[in-house]
Amino acid sequence: MPRKILVIHGPNLNLLGEREPGIYGRFTLEEINKELSALAAQKGVELKIVQSNHEGELVEAIQNARHWADVLVINPAAYTHTSVAIRDAIAAVRVPTVEVHLSNTHAREGFRHTSLVSPVAVGVIMGFGKASYLLALDAAVSLELDAKK
Amino acid sequence: MPRKILVIHGPNLNLLGEREPGIYGRFTLEEINKELSALAAQKGVELKIVQSNHEGELVEAIQNARHWADVLVINPAAYTHTSVAIRDAIAAVRVPTVEVHLSNTHAREGFRHTSLVSPVAVGVIMGFGKASYLLALDAAVSLELDAKK
Amino acid sequence: MPRKILVIHGPNLNLLGEREPGIYGRFTLEEINKELSALAAQKGVELKIVQSNHEGELVEAIQNARHWADVLVINPAAYTHTSVAIRDAIAAVRVPTVEVHLSNTHAREGFRHTSLVSPVAVGVIMGFGKASYLLALDAAVSLELDAKK
Amino acid sequence: MPRKILVIHGPNLNLLGEREPGIYGRFTLEEINKELSALAAQKGVELKIVQSNHEGELVEAIQNARHWADVLVINPAAYTHTSVAIRDAIAAVRVPTVEVHLSNTHAREGFRHTSLVSPVAVGVIMGFGKASYLLALDAAVSLELDAKK
Amino acid sequence: MPRKILVIHGPNLNLLGEREPGIYGRFTLEEINKELSALAAQKGVELKIVQSNHEGELVEAIQNARHWADVLVINPAAYTHTSVAIRDAIAAVRVPTVEVHLSNTHAREGFRHTSLVSPVAVGVIMGFGKASYLLALDAAVSLELDAKK
Amino acid sequence: MPRKILVIHGPNLNLLGEREPGIYGRFTLEEINKELSALAAQKGVELKIVQSNHEGELVEAIQNARHWADVLVINPAAYTHTSVAIRDAIAAVRVPTVEVHLSNTHAREGFRHTSLVSPVAVGVIMGFGKASYLLALDAAVSLELDAKK
Amino acid sequence: MPRKILVIHGPNLNLLGEREPGIYGRFTLEEINKELSALAAQKGVELKIVQSNHEGELVEAIQNARHWADVLVINPAAYTHTSVAIRDAIAAVRVPTVEVHLSNTHAREGFRHTSLVSPVAVGVIMGFGKASYLLALDAAVSLELDAKK
Amino acid sequence: MPRKILVIHGPNLNLLGEREPGIYGRFTLEEINKELSALAAQKGVELKIVQSNHEGELVEAIQNARHWADVLVINPAAYTHTSVAIRDAIAAVRVPTVEVHLSNTHAREGFRHTSLVSPVAVGVIMGFGKASYLLALDAAVSLELDAKK
Amino acid sequence: MPRKILVIHGPNLNLLGEREPGIYGRFTLEEINKELSALAAQKGVELKIVQSNHEGELVEAIQNARHWADVLVINPAAYTHTSVAIRDAIAAVRVPTVEVHLSNTHAREGFRHTSLVSPVAVGVIMGFGKASYLLALDAAVSLELDAKK
Amino acid sequence: MPRKILVIHGPNLNLLGEREPGIYGRFTLEEINKELSALAAQKGVELKIVQSNHEGELVEAIQNARHWADVLVINPAAYTHTSVAIRDAIAAVRVPTVEVHLSNTHAREGFRHTSLVSPVAVGVIMGFGKASYLLALDAAVSLELDAKK
Amino acid sequence: MPRKILVIHGPNLNLLGEREPGIYGRFTLEEINKELSALAAQKGVELKIVQSNHEGELVEAIQNARHWADVLVINPAAYTHTSVAIRDAIAAVRVPTVEVHLSNTHAREGFRHTSLVSPVAVGVIMGFGKASYLLALDAAVSLELDAKK
Amino acid sequence: MPRKILVIHGPNLNLLGEREPGIYGRFTLEEINKELSALAAQKGVELKIVQSNHEGELVEAIQNARHWADVLVINPAAYTHTSVAIRDAIAAVRVPTVEVHLSNTHAREGFRHTSLVSPVAVGVIMGFGKASYLLALDAAVSLELDAKK
Repeated sequence: MPRKILVIHGPNLNLLGEREPGIYGRFTLEEINKELSALAAQKGVELKIVQSNHEGELVEAIQNARHWADVLVINPAAYTHTSVAIRDAIAAVRVPTVEVHLSNTHAREGFRHTSLVSPVAVGVIMGFGKASYLLALDAAVSLELDAKK
Repeated sequence: MPRKILVIHGPNLNLLGEREPGIYGRFTLEEINKELSALAAQKGVELKIVQSNHEGELVEAIQNARHWADVLVINPAAYTHTSVAIRDAIAAVRVPTVEVHLSNTHAREGFRHTSLVSPVAVGVIMGFGKASYLLALDAAVSLELDAKK
Repeated sequence: MPRKILVIHGPNLNLLGEREPGIYGRFTLEEINKELSALAAQKGVELKIVQSNHEGELVEAIQNARHWADVLVINPAAYTHTSVAIRDAIAAVRVPTVEVHLSNTHAREGFRHTSLVSPVAVGVIMGFGKASYLLALDAAVSLELDAKK
Repeated sequence: MPRKILVIHGPNLNLLGEREPGIYGRFTLEEINKELSALAAQKGVELKIVQSNHEGELVEAIQNARHWADVLVINPAAYTHTSVAIRDAIAAVRVPTVEVHLSNTHAREGFRHTSLVSPVAVGVIMGFGKASYLLALDAAVSLELDAKK
Repeated sequence: MPRKILVIHGPNLNLLGEREPGIYGRFTLEEINKELSALAAQKGVELKIVQSNHEGELVEAIQNARHWADVLVINPAAYTHTSVAIRDAIAAVRVPTVEVHLSNTHAREGFRHTSLVSPVAVGVIMGFGKASYLLALDAAVSLELDAKK
Repeated sequence: MPRKILVIHGPNLNLLGEREPGIYGRFTLEEINKELSALAAQKGVELKIVQSNHEGELVEAIQNARHWADVLVINPAAYTHTSVAIRDAIAAVRVPTVEVHLSNTHAREGFRHTSLVSPVAVGVIMGFGKASYLLALDAAVSLELDAKK
Repeated sequence: MPRKILVIHGPNLNLLGEREPGIYGRFTLEEINKELSALAAQKGVELKIVQSNHEGELVEAIQNARHWADVLVINPAAYTHTSVAIRDAIAAVRVPTVEVHLSNTHAREGFRHTSLVSPVAVGVIMGFGKASYLLALDAAVSLELDAKK
Repeated sequence: MPRKILVIHGPNLNLLGEREPGIYGRFTLEEINKELSALAAQKGVELKIVQSNHEGELVEAIQNARHWADVLVINPAAYTHTSVAIRDAIAAVRVPTVEVHLSNTHAREGFRHTSLVSPVAVGVIMGFGKASYLLALDAAVSLELDAKK
Repeated sequence: MPRKILVIHGPNLNLLGEREPGIYGRFTLEEINKELSALAAQKGVELKIVQSNHEGELVEAIQNARHWADVLVINPAAYTHTSVAIRDAIAAVRVPTVEVHLSNTHAREGFRHTSLVSPVAVGVIMGFGKASYLLALDAAVSLELDAKK
Repeated sequence: MPRKILVIHGPNLNLLGEREPGIYGRFTLEEINKELSALAAQKGVELKIVQSNHEGELVEAIQNARHWADVLVINPAAYTHTSVAIRDAIAAVRVPTVEVHLSNTHAREGFRHTSLVSPVAVGVIMGFGKASYLLALDAAVSLELDAKK
Repeated sequence: MPRKILVIHGPNLNLLGEREPGIYGRFTLEEINKELSALAAQKGVELKIVQSNHEGELVEAIQNARHWADVLVINPAAYTHTSVAIRDAIAAVRVPTVEVHLSNTHAREGFRHTSLVSPVAVGVIMGFGKASYLLALDAAVSLELDAKK
Repeated sequence: MPRKILVIHGPNLNLLGEREPGIYGRFTLEEINKELSALAAQKGVELKIVQSNHEGELVEAIQNARHWADVLVINPAAYTHTSVAIRDAIAAVRVPTVEVHLSNTHAREGFRHTSLVSPVAVGVIMGFGKASYLLALDAAVSLELDAKK
């Protein structure tokens, strides 16, 4: 059975391409999604993608993932640093989660150095721009899953 | 006139029963609500119950309570530690509020030791699992209300 | 072409007039909006006004402003102190932003002394009650805009 | 066999009724004890009550509880914030413990926001004045006890 | 009787125009004062203006204001972050005070994020360059004054 | 009626004269008490003096003072920095209290710079050795007392 | 030879009587000085008194004291918490110094809890209003002076 | 003359054997005392042993040691982290002191990482269970004592 | 010309396979290196690998990389959190650097949450065990290099 | 089979005897080693001793110990406070480790109060000068070892 | 044209020679000035020297330097740690500045470890007593100046 | 006898000239050494110079200096902020030490503002690029040495 992966994009990522291109790059979210879909197809993976600017919708996307997804790939964006609700949702659904960031958050403002999500994620990939997502999908594909789930 | 009490459940509480049962117990939110309703009936109290994963909806549930509820019982869950908006809403509506938690948050991660809600609540009950809610309803029923409201 | 200004009211501001009048004053949000509209008309400015209790809706109001507004006037209220998402949205849309508060947040609780929004705003006006908004609109009208936008 | 519960009152609680009634209420400790005894009788619970202003005596009351009590209900009062010895005693005797406070300590001075006792208690009830004790006794009565003790 | 307003400029503001124009702008203090005087004339307000680099002189300017001024407009500049004496003087004379800054101090070094003056001011206006002063004068003109003074 | 003053000496003060004379001086506690008695006699004041090394006994000495003393003079010694119970007792009995120290605690180790007692005391006298007590008695004698007590 | 004592009053103390009487009392600085002079006369002490709002003048008053004064009595007021220069001057002149405050600074805002002056003073007297000064003069009179000076 | 050593056991150590054996081991305090006595006999040392749960009694045990003991061996247990009074007593009596702990406090909760006693002790031995005491007695026996005492 | 990549393993990584396998996995460093070589061969990349337990040798490996490598892949292990020298070396040689960790350092002890290396790295990959290295090599291969180097 | 113990001396310990004798004593490292060897012989223990000023060499001495030593005795000296690499090495080799210091580090500068090594050591002995090592060897000899190693 | 250098001495430096000679040395300010003048003459440099105990005068000395001096040499003394105004003046006049201290401030009290001036100075020289000034003058003479000034 | 001075260059200084020239300048270490040698010759001083990237080698260079050098001049570079071992070595050998830095570390990242070396150095010189070393050699030459060494 093909592995099922849900990719979740957090707030303001819908602006990619026009948003601070010095930090986030010149590609759009659509372009990222297209490249993710192509890679998923090539790896034989089922892929769903959601984006939301609402913390509550992100929480519910994670909750719903528990009935479908084998792995989550999430870029919580701004909520990385402020959302206990997203952290709790990830811990609650017990779907292995890969955290991903376009920029290297450790090279930016101090408040971006702390992630509430990282301690409940399997791993973190950050700083490679668009490629961060592709590496994260790769990681998600090759993750050893717990048989008992 | 019977006392009117609004019970508000915060984010991820809709997952109760399947979410980290070692921390939160094996009962579902529905079971809690049923026990609350039974107790309310027995005490002659009018009860409404809402659950939401959205901070904004919780803010609005609190706002709307000002036209109906005599007391609020709220488990802000993850928003306990991050939501100034919920705190401000409680302070704004001036409905006496009982804060409740299933787990003992002081026995968990450091960021759960601080509640933005507690300073505007009348009192706090935590750590008794499902019974926390029943005790909170009891507290809400016997709370001395300010006649001038 | 007349300058276009979007005024954004954050959470709980819809309760103005009944919410802690000792801190926020006895006027309603509607009254503020009416005075803002009158001043806008007098200054020959196009004005839109939105209010929301939802962080995600505020983020999207800011995002949408990039296709219309020349200047943002925002009172992020409770989200001032907790929302990286709103900060990121303001930075993303690159519309010059005036931050406004009814009360003097520096004379209140410690957690209100830090604004995540201020570092990405042009300027801040706080403490003058209803007049804070009128001063902010004035500031927005006379702001020198970058021709290149 | 009826459940055995020991209620422990910490320092300065013997002054209740004359001590800062704005914070602690106008009832005396004797009145609280009488209401506790009435409730215990009604619930078929064996009750013992001690009060001391001495940290060492409180430690020893807790130590002695291990031969008699099924549950402890303790208001450590001022020692809440300073006594590692009381915390260690509770952890040592392994009798499930309910922490109780008359006032909402989170709405008071900063040094009262940290409890050394909470992390070793089952749960905490605070802010309901005299009713805090009655709720705590209720909680103690309905606590699921570990059969193996 | 016309309202009497005292404008106080703190240290190094006498260098405006040649001092770090990227932060403070290219106008001189004289130009600001001229614009303030014009606005005051137009509003029918009596205006006095002082500048000093000496903390003690600023303290005394504030002290003397108590016999004349209805409102103070003060840019404490560098002393904003270090002078308890200026804060105490403002609190002592009980003349309502508007704090003003040319730059947005929250977008600069960390030590500029804390103002000792803000908690005793009515309100704060910052970040609008020269216009900060004009807005502050406006605010001072329309401030509701306590009749009993 | 002569003013009644209770002087309370905290832990280790019974060792005065042999304890670190470089810090505390070469006089004994008995000598201090004799000088205090002489001064009290001369001022027409009724004086009682207690010393204890036990926090609980100090708490109870303070509690009992509420039926007799017009003013407390207390040197909480080591408990200055650790006893919320003594602070609470002083606040509870509402007897005006003068805090006294032989040494200048601000010129010693960091943990001695914070006093839990000072915020509930009327005033503090420290650093004058034996004379600290005599000055404190003087202060206690001339303190304006609230008639309503 | 009579002991020579210099009393130094810091910033804003010239406003006593009209400045926040709830904190500082209703007496004027002149009245304090008169009482100090009377007490000095009675004790056979030579007294000089200075007041300044200027940190530099206070530094120089202390410096000049080294040629005349046997003891300094200083109320550094607002400079207590910010002036390393005054601290250094006291350390430099090696004239024993008594620090005095009208109010109990430990019962006020957090930034008033730290004194840069205390560690170089002999002792501190605070909280007794006008009487603080008289006690300080007493302390200064009876201070054992180092013969070798 | 044989060396005289006083061993002092702090609070809750009387529960050894039944208290959290995973941390403290399965031996009782009596067993430790017996082994200490045997070792003392073998080394030709006079030994006294006291245990108390009361901070004040521990302070007085230390005070009394000054007339008899050449060396103190103390396990302050919970008071290690909270008692300035015990620290002051040790400093006051100037009897060389060996601090001992059964467990390695640095491998436990953060508040156990700071010892108020260590800075006035000669040395510290911790983490070896029952053997910690025997090593401490060894250390006490071989300590070079200051002839001048 | 094939891309040249230097992989640097920090201290204690030579123990992989026997070192805390619950955290680091059961594979050896040799196995990781073999998989890296295979992947490099497949990608047409020139690969060199070094391991050292010496901070100075790691610094020099980085320094030497400037004459050969196009990209660095480094797992600084324990030195991640303590070595300014390694950070400075990376900044000095201006070879783009990928930081990699076997474990998710954010889910471990607090002192592992801060990386001195991250702010000078292009990006970070952590938490995927052996796969972290393969993902990092992938990232290094597809990194866009600055032509001007 | 005789127990095998490796003693590791950290940086600057080769200077003993001439290095700050007030803190470290007048004996040389050679003298300590001789006494250790004598004690080892008497206890029937096999002893190896190494000293290095290089963090990497200390890491490797610990790594190599895993094939030979039953217990480590280590004085990490300056690296106590800065070396995660040494801590990780001790955790990796799982050889029970006794931490030892000549001086009482808690009675010295603040940065010496934190040990990165203590949490992974069995126990700590400090402050007894040369005797610290002999006590540590004793502790190492009598340590109960896990049979399963 | 000879280089023009202004040397500025901060508060209490006029007391040199009699002020804490253990820290500051036995020479007077006049002696330092004489040596500076001699060195300046020898180097062909124009020298002016000012001293003040007043923060405002130091600010103005720096301001005035912008019309004359090529380099500033400043010992801000006590104001080093507290004066944002002096820092701002240095940044405003853009005259390259050498910070100098007689003592090594990092070997003194904690509050002397932070300099508000250092970040806007070219460089810092401290700890060499009188020679600090001569080295600073040397540094000022050989500083490469920006031609464009 | 000519004064003997050892100059020690820390990690990454061997890269000077190619390493971040905006911060460190365009000259090489060889050029600095040549200028140092020329100055030494001119002053009649014996000079030795070492550079190492290894903390342990730097420690040993300092240790060896005790048999030869009258003064140390050290640029600990990255180890400035992390090496207790180098600090201890300097304190151990008691050779007066001048700390030197090319850049002004106080104008860089926060972690560079703290030097572990400064408190044991005689003095510090920083920010003058290559000239920092020449000034330091000057300082070392003119340092008053303790005759008793």
